[in-house]
Amino acid sequence: MASRNGGFHVEEADIDIGDSAALLNPKDAENLGIPAGSRAVVVCGGRSLGVVALHSTRVEPGSLALTRQALERLGECRAAEIYPLEFPASFDAFERRLEGKRLDANDYKQLIGDIVAGLYDDAQIAAFLVSQMHYRITEDELVYLIRAMVDTGDVVAFGEPVYDEHSIGGVPGNSKVALLVVPIVASRGLLIPKTSSRAITSPAGTADTMEVLARVTFTPEEIHEMALKARGLIVWGGALNLAPADDIFIRVERRLGIDPPTQMVASILAKKLAMSVSRLVIDIPVGRGAKVENEKDATSMASLFLSQAGRLGINMRVAITYGNEPIGYGVGPALEAREALETLIKGDGPLSLVEKACSLAGLVLELGGVAPRGGGYSLACESLRSGAAYRKFREILDIQQGDPDIKPEDIRLGRKQITLRAPRDGVVSTIDNVAITLAARAAGAPDDKSAGIRLHVKTGYRVKKGDPLLTIYSSSDARLHEALRVVEEHEAVIIEGVVVKLFP
Amino acid sequence: MASRNGGFHVEEADIDIGDSAALLNPKDAENLGIPAGSRAVVVCGGRSLGVVALHSTRVEPGSLALTRQALERLGECRAAEIYPLEFPASFDAFERRLEGKRLDANDYKQLIGDIVAGLYDDAQIAAFLVSQMHYRITEDELVYLIRAMVDTGDVVAFGEPVYDEHSIGGVPGNSKVALLVVPIVASRGLLIPKTSSRAITSPAGTADTMEVLARVTFTPEEIHEMALKARGLIVWGGALNLAPADDIFIRVERRLGIDPPTQMVASILAKKLAMSVSRLVIDIPVGRGAKVENEKDATSMASLFLSQAGRLGINMRVAITYGNEPIGYGVGPALEAREALETLIKGDGPLSLVEKACSLAGLVLELGGVAPRGGGYSLACESLRSGAAYRKFREILDIQQGDPDIKPEDIRLGRKQITLRAPRDGVVSTIDNVAITLAARAAGAPDDKSAGIRLHVKTGYRVKKGDPLLTIYSSSDARLHEALRVVEEHEAVIIEGVVVKLFP
Repeated sequence: MASRNGGFHVEEADIDIGDSAALLNPKDAENLGIPAGSRAVVVCGGRSLGVVALHSTRVEPGSLALTRQALERLGECRAAEIYPLEFPASFDAFERRLEGKRLDANDYKQLIGDIVAGLYDDAQIAAFLVSQMHYRITEDELVYLIRAMVDTGDVVAFGEPVYDEHSIGGVPGNSKVALLVVPIVASRGLLIPKTSSRAITSPAGTADTMEVLARVTFTPEEIHEMALKARGLIVWGGALNLAPADDIFIRVERRLGIDPPTQMVASILAKKLAMSVSRLVIDIPVGRGAKVENEKDATSMASLFLSQAGRLGINMRVAITYGNEPIGYGVGPALEAREALETLIKGDGPLSLVEKACSLAGLVLELGGVAPRGGGYSLACESLRSGAAYRKFREILDIQQGDPDIKPEDIRLGRKQITLRAPRDGVVSTIDNVAITLAARAAGAPDDKSAGIRLHVKTGYRVKKGDPLLTIYSSSDARLHEALRVVEEHEAVIIEGVVVKLFP
Repeated sequence: MASRNGGFHVEEADIDIGDSAALLNPKDAENLGIPAGSRAVVVCGGRSLGVVALHSTRVEPGSLALTRQALERLGECRAAEIYPLEFPASFDAFERRLEGKRLDANDYKQLIGDIVAGLYDDAQIAAFLVSQMHYRITEDELVYLIRAMVDTGDVVAFGEPVYDEHSIGGVPGNSKVALLVVPIVASRGLLIPKTSSRAITSPAGTADTMEVLARVTFTPEEIHEMALKARGLIVWGGALNLAPADDIFIRVERRLGIDPPTQMVASILAKKLAMSVSRLVIDIPVGRGAKVENEKDATSMASLFLSQAGRLGINMRVAITYGNEPIGYGVGPALEAREALETLIKGDGPLSLVEKACSLAGLVLELGGVAPRGGGYSLACESLRSGAAYRKFREILDIQQGDPDIKPEDIRLGRKQITLRAPRDGVVSTIDNVAITLAARAAGAPDDKSAGIRLHVKTGYRVKKGDPLLTIYSSSDARLHEALRVVEEHEAVIIEGVVVKLFP
């Protein structure tokens, strides 16, 4: 029904809907058959983009006000056309997927292309994601999906093998592990330009934590140049156009509270392939309140990763790691950055952190042939203890425009603090991942980088009544108390008497 | 994380997003932690409503611009508060549903309550709907869902048994059937205040067609009073607050191209219960290109309706009807209104229309005890033939502020017309429901009420080359030709030689 329309004069909208949108005068909208809130296609200078159509009498007839997001996607754009969007060309494939039918490589290519072009709305994307929970996509299909996600974005190529380590996450305190792994690996000469995400549901993503110490946003060209110099980087992947479909999926998954395994594997591997990663270590933490709660599920996820790696030409090892309680003691960007920096400087630190970082870095070193199979762990520890990893980290800080001389105590923590103390003598039986995550977020993490939780105890510690269990940091009194409420309500730390039960 | 905020000054937004939205200044939004495009809750004068939050520098700090939709829902509202919305209280039930777990009555009550309050976004509603395609909800759960949908809206009570007839649709030309059924039934004294919908994917809903002849938008109070006077009404249900969750579901289903059977049954029965209907005839047309394509599916849908009716205290009969080709000859609001009026005036008309209307009206009369079982059809035909139905229809037109003296030829049809002619001698073997629907919509129906298609033939007619097959009506030349293209491309009418195959 779309009839060609004359060029609209393009202006920038003084409104932000968090997405690409076009405002047009209600009269133009009526003539073109574009209802308010419907999707439309804007065509401008050879590019086209799906947008939400909004009506506003404030926009003159003949004008089109585009949001910043739309203008960024369309580039230079002065005169545009706009058409109603009924159903995208790939809609037939979309409907077959909802019915659990198999799609082929071309279907996925079309579908993902249309999603990236903005031709699907959030309701439709949600339906696509939910369908994966019910009708699992096959391993062949997953390859098509991943390839389509990579092919619809940019690829950064290096001309030499690229290494990486990626944790599926879900355990608080985990974001700092990469701040050790990357310099350890790079200090041995392997190329590890790690792109990481910001926190979605956790108190800190690796990019959030690294940002406490250095800049994390760079262009693909800068990343290419910097990585070849420093051999290691820890940057934010979100500003790059790497597998952009993934960003769309994650935004919607977040609102649904779901993370279907096939889509998670697709997300991770598509981002890695876009960075030309061919040697990859995957970390699957398993434990109460982690993303994966038992070894059976972890094993099945590991198989899925490995089968995909085989099909996609990635040399991969998967580690299932202990995830019953937070990693190290700090949770939240500033606290985690501090703990990582202390550990790098001293060449030693909390067992749960050092063990994990050396194990994962060791696996990467083994993939690179720098260490023999089984010899990676000790070589990695050696890099940490010798100060080689710290020297490399300073290089990375320097190239990422951070201060290589920064000291742990320079990192500012939330000015408002409150400490939770043991209500009785006993043994720490549980430190609850979910409660710690919720409390750190309630305190303001990750947006308030100085907010978070510092544990004073770990599982198995013996405590006396009144001993400090954890300290909450925040910039705001209100948030501090909200976090304390969460900690108490969820019993974040459980102390049990040494004698659990007594018979007469 | 929501902290109380001072009263915002409320103004009306000069923007329409097709939904409830609140625009606020980016600084206020940052202070309150409300990202652009996220959902927020507006509280005003004791009422609260979930809205989409938009940022605009044009809104002064301390002000909140609400869209018309939001203002209608909130009522009188001068000072409001706004809070970020993380996950609604019913989110746990929502997630269990996505995993295919059973929900209880209270879960559905909470969930539907939160959906109606605007606390769920379209992505989440899509997930809820899609989950029904995979994990069918049980018959017990369906009762909870329907009750929750009724309880979250208004109910119009009459103090006497309320009758209705409802077609699940999917066959072009069907919207006019109710224009015969309602006066036939009402002419026998039964109360049949039919609320109907506008077209979603068809060329005409019953409300669209009736609107050609009379007003269809009234308040619940008006409907109550008018129905008791005229005994029958044909009004639009959409402006009433009857099972408002249904309107939300339908909006999203439309974009997904899905219509899960359980949700369809819930939608229909919730709307009926909100009108206090206790005696109901359901029409399931079956045929190529109809909503239900085979008798097996129709039978299973009939069982679902009947089992729900039993649980909900509705006395119901279900008719599976012939749906292989359009009903009657006219398709589109004006053409169908004309055909219905002609039939009422003459007391006779196209066989497919008269047969269907008398059969369905007859079943209603049997439910009401006005006709003995098996005797409804002839009693209904008698009402039509005798002119009693037409006299009742004039009463209904009068009370709905239409012109009771209107003649069929007074109804304006699209000024632009084009006729498709038989390319050869032969027999009409197929009139394609889907093609006729698409073509009538391409011509402009239902928004352009004068647009549509008049068939000159039905299946089985013998034609000579050059005989007219159908005429397309539209207000616009461009649409007329687009409709013709659709008709030709989809082979809307197929003529076969009388001799289909010839052996030597």
